[in-house]
Amino acid sequence: MKNIEKTLNYIKSISAEMITTAGSGNLGASLGASTFLFALFKDHYNFDVSDTDFLNRDRLVLSSGQVSPLYYTLLSLFGFDVSLQDLKSFRQFGSKTPGNPEYGKTEGVEASTGPLGQGVANAVGMAIAEKSLSERFNTVGFPIINNYTYCHVSEGDLMEGISQEACSLAGTLKLSKLILLYDCNDVTVDGRVSLSNKEDVAKKFKAMGWNVIIVRKGNNYNACSRAIGRAKKSKKPTLIIFKTIIGIGTNKEGTSAVYDYVLTQDELDAYKKTLNVTDSFYIPADVRELCMQATRRGKLYHENWNQTLAIYANSQPELYKELVNYFDKKKLDYEKILKNEDRWVGISTVDANSMIFNEIGDKLSQLIGGCADVARKTKVNLNNSENFLVRSKRGRNLHYGVREHAMAAISNGIALYEDFIAFDSTFLAFSNYMIPALRMRAMMKLPAISIFTHDSICVGQSGPTYQPIEQIGQLRSIIGLNVFRPCDGKEVLASYKLALSEEAPSALILSNQVSPEIEGTSYKDAQLGGYVVKSSKAADVVLYATGSEVGLAMEVAKELSKKYEVSVVSFPSLEIFEKQTSAYKLRTLQKDAKLRVAIEASNDNVWYKYLNDDDLFIGVHSYMQSCPGGVNYAKAGFTVKNIVKEITNRMNKKQ
Amino acid sequence: MKNIEKTLNYIKSISAEMITTAGSGNLGASLGASTFLFALFKDHYNFDVSDTDFLNRDRLVLSSGQVSPLYYTLLSLFGFDVSLQDLKSFRQFGSKTPGNPEYGKTEGVEASTGPLGQGVANAVGMAIAEKSLSERFNTVGFPIINNYTYCHVSEGDLMEGISQEACSLAGTLKLSKLILLYDCNDVTVDGRVSLSNKEDVAKKFKAMGWNVIIVRKGNNYNACSRAIGRAKKSKKPTLIIFKTIIGIGTNKEGTSAVYDYVLTQDELDAYKKTLNVTDSFYIPADVRELCMQATRRGKLYHENWNQTLAIYANSQPELYKELVNYFDKKKLDYEKILKNEDRWVGISTVDANSMIFNEIGDKLSQLIGGCADVARKTKVNLNNSENFLVRSKRGRNLHYGVREHAMAAISNGIALYEDFIAFDSTFLAFSNYMIPALRMRAMMKLPAISIFTHDSICVGQSGPTYQPIEQIGQLRSIIGLNVFRPCDGKEVLASYKLALSEEAPSALILSNQVSPEIEGTSYKDAQLGGYVVKSSKAADVVLYATGSEVGLAMEVAKELSKKYEVSVVSFPSLEIFEKQTSAYKLRTLQKDAKLRVAIEASNDNVWYKYLNDDDLFIGVHSYMQSCPGGVNYAKAGFTVKNIVKEITNRMNKKQ
Repeated sequence: MKNIEKTLNYIKSISAEMITTAGSGNLGASLGASTFLFALFKDHYNFDVSDTDFLNRDRLVLSSGQVSPLYYTLLSLFGFDVSLQDLKSFRQFGSKTPGNPEYGKTEGVEASTGPLGQGVANAVGMAIAEKSLSERFNTVGFPIINNYTYCHVSEGDLMEGISQEACSLAGTLKLSKLILLYDCNDVTVDGRVSLSNKEDVAKKFKAMGWNVIIVRKGNNYNACSRAIGRAKKSKKPTLIIFKTIIGIGTNKEGTSAVYDYVLTQDELDAYKKTLNVTDSFYIPADVRELCMQATRRGKLYHENWNQTLAIYANSQPELYKELVNYFDKKKLDYEKILKNEDRWVGISTVDANSMIFNEIGDKLSQLIGGCADVARKTKVNLNNSENFLVRSKRGRNLHYGVREHAMAAISNGIALYEDFIAFDSTFLAFSNYMIPALRMRAMMKLPAISIFTHDSICVGQSGPTYQPIEQIGQLRSIIGLNVFRPCDGKEVLASYKLALSEEAPSALILSNQVSPEIEGTSYKDAQLGGYVVKSSKAADVVLYATGSEVGLAMEVAKELSKKYEVSVVSFPSLEIFEKQTSAYKLRTLQKDAKLRVAIEASNDNVWYKYLNDDDLFIGVHSYMQSCPGGVNYAKAGFTVKNIVKEITNRMNKKQ
Repeated sequence: MKNIEKTLNYIKSISAEMITTAGSGNLGASLGASTFLFALFKDHYNFDVSDTDFLNRDRLVLSSGQVSPLYYTLLSLFGFDVSLQDLKSFRQFGSKTPGNPEYGKTEGVEASTGPLGQGVANAVGMAIAEKSLSERFNTVGFPIINNYTYCHVSEGDLMEGISQEACSLAGTLKLSKLILLYDCNDVTVDGRVSLSNKEDVAKKFKAMGWNVIIVRKGNNYNACSRAIGRAKKSKKPTLIIFKTIIGIGTNKEGTSAVYDYVLTQDELDAYKKTLNVTDSFYIPADVRELCMQATRRGKLYHENWNQTLAIYANSQPELYKELVNYFDKKKLDYEKILKNEDRWVGISTVDANSMIFNEIGDKLSQLIGGCADVARKTKVNLNNSENFLVRSKRGRNLHYGVREHAMAAISNGIALYEDFIAFDSTFLAFSNYMIPALRMRAMMKLPAISIFTHDSICVGQSGPTYQPIEQIGQLRSIIGLNVFRPCDGKEVLASYKLALSEEAPSALILSNQVSPEIEGTSYKDAQLGGYVVKSSKAADVVLYATGSEVGLAMEVAKELSKKYEVSVVSFPSLEIFEKQTSAYKLRTLQKDAKLRVAIEASNDNVWYKYLNDDDLFIGVHSYMQSCPGGVNYAKAGFTVKNIVKEITNRMNKKQ
């Protein structure tokens, strides 16, 4: 116990030093949460520092990313590749210890966090992934997949709606290996939690089907460790409420003032004195040895797992083979899927997607996901797989309920767990509920796929709140997210080819209207992100279009061709297009044309990148009405007659 | 009772007819919720059809907007300006009965709804508004403000995170006049609710401090009406759980198939037969008379209130005068505030805002709002007003907790209640949690103000998840939202002048870095949205900038002026700028310059509207690091040296 106390003192000391050295950071919770997080690492968390990615490791997400000083100190102490020098360079350019944990930057970090609530939903996703694999592969005597998912959460995290959505689903699905460690210190940035939140959190979580453990002495080591041990035995997900004292041991302890207070050098020295620590950024040998016990425990856990796996390979060869191959990048026969392109003629891209998605999904065992209650409408469902339900988790279709934001962040968690290809789906209008999670996804470069249908004012009768206009632009604005808006089945297939090969997330945008047959579309060329569908030597007018507007552009071109040389370019993905060579881009854009016209049922300013002052963007610039979709489309100017007229007027002005 | 049953039959019949005529609509819930919504209108809801805006009317929000057929039928029956012809033109272009209710389009509609969960949070906002006024103005014997806020919610609404956030706050604040009528039919689009949600909703709401009433016979009139009566007596907000049968009376009742099923003409006729209704879109006299009783009740309620108000005017003349003037557009003396502009020199726009916001707030009694737990950081707080807390609701500062999305929709509710000016605030990075509510706000043209600080990669040490890049563009993409990014105190003041006079919402974007003193900025000209700060006859190079980049642009101009004629234009608001005359815009943009350069720490493609192929946008195009903010700024190219170099290179190419 003496050694534990000494270790905790060094942990707190270094955390405080990191913050004072950096000049910023969350002191309060880094100190307050130290006991239980240390207990987690020391007695429970199974990790192997010599192989930090092995499949059955426990997962730990720091939803409250600001507790990073504590977290990095623990990672360092327990043998991850985080040195004392790394700790010293907390929040400095190029360091491995950024202000909030970043996936891929620091060994041991399982998810980038920062915006509150995201990590909670990521953790739910990881727990879903674990259950998906364990149900599929575990057999009697062979618990091949049985890791825990731990998530540190703050007061703020649990207030966020995304957490409530995710926890409600977790309770419904009885994700029993999910354990939230809630730092209940009753303080947030602006003061006591009770200023804004008087909920009975324990009761609320029980109502959602969770097991709840309250640790009244959240800064007592044994109490903390015992609680985690009990949580691991539960048949439900567990919320452990650690009643802690924020900033414990400092003279501002228990107040919001200590939340992100930076101790002056004098205050730091005084604080360290109370901890009996005289060194700076230093770990004594006995402290290191105490932690190494846990490191060795983790290594042993992995070795045992390897042995179990070896026996499993012999006694369950088929399952073993399936497991080994489960996450492989399968060689998909796109050409074979393409052979039947006639099937896609005369149907919408929503319907074409449903077919293609299923053909791909049948081959890709690792594809898993769901819809936010509108699968019947988006038709995004793996028809040959079951639903992932509480009673049977072998299925690959998740019923997210009306929880779009959690859905997106849960997809992120699934993708983080292992090389799953997570998919999610809803109406394009409601993609805006998901944006914070999509941003995180793009930052973490997770190859998950969002599929959005009902993609324009043609949604019609449900009215303007269901009719997206700015959503496409908002998605394209997220750096690192590839956005696809295919015009027909061939372009849908090309979109999947890219989505499944790029090291980046994708958003696929589909229309419910029937696509006309468009001569000149190409599965091969669509993979360049933008390509000429109707060519013309020295075009007078070049039309740029996407999705449902490509067919319209072709009709416009046909009419205009009576008078002008017209070329039509389809842009299934601007982000992919931008990666092509300058020569290709120039050739495709045909900037020498007298007039360039972008046609898209959106208000995305991205088109102005490709237009000059005198060019034209036919878009949607006001909210429309509740009426049949075609009426809106026409009223917004998306008719051959209107577009031809506008172009002709422009061309006349240019004479 | 017989008349009630007959009336309900006609209500259901007309709802079903509306859907069959339109070809789409939510049949299931329109039928299932008919009993309790009818009971609400008939026995409890206080409205005056001859003066639908009077202050103390009850508020009713249809969070589940898709129940609109039922809702419009009730509005029509009870005497609102919705005719039978209007019902017939459900979901048709130009009609008063759009697919989801639209504020301003149909008499009686208190909020536009559609995207699930928004209405719940609006209702919480309305209840907050009611409490704010009642605490301020009611005295013994004079319950001047004491209306109820009713909100119809669906299964889907309650799953949404925004609802959970809003309801948690409502429980904390003990908003006792808030009553949610929950259509608990156990069905959503994709099937039984239990597929995705097995929560104990009653227990969950009790944990949040709500009163819960369960009506097991949700299609029994007396049970429904009694429950609402009991709810009105509660000292806590109430959730009434009506166990209903979706699509009751049809042959698909109780299943998800009836959710949005459209009865064929034959099926409709058969259904109407079971209701004993032979007419089409017709209200018999006795049904009309039954409903008119409630209409008269409402009128009487208003008359009584007028009388009470008259006596109050005599016996509490000061309070009465304050009430009468409360929502007036006060004549703010902007020039007086401007006189002390020196105070704003050498401080950040966050700090300048804090001063200006308070000076304005001291004069505008109707300004009310809060922050999502970061008031200490955004400095958006009415220092001369108290906090709005459960024990005292006179204050104008709300503690929203970490609930950004609900905060935005609650602001909408406050603004909808009466002419409050609602404000909300958080870091710009997390504005993306609020987007769906901001879209609704823009659609409804509510003059609420969102204030976002920490507006760029200069946030620095918290890392990329706290550093906004695309958020400004996402906000600007919302049609009808005016976005302001002022560069100094004068422009902040101009932003408020506009925000408080436009019939539109505003987003104010502020920096934490100290603004340099910029010669040439003008409070007057800033009100044009864009204006020349540094002029030049026949500029070679024109720089467009906003906010923190205006000062930088001026320094760049100074350096470049050694070689070129340079002009600098500040654009505190592009939306306002776009409303100016063509002549002014052309004059300001100076498109004849050899080179146009936009400089903004964002990736907003809007700048390409003002640039041609060979022009330059100095923006941020990748996520940055956790390090001191200035390091990011420099690395992203925002230094005088780098920008001068890029411009010089471009100019050289143009020779």
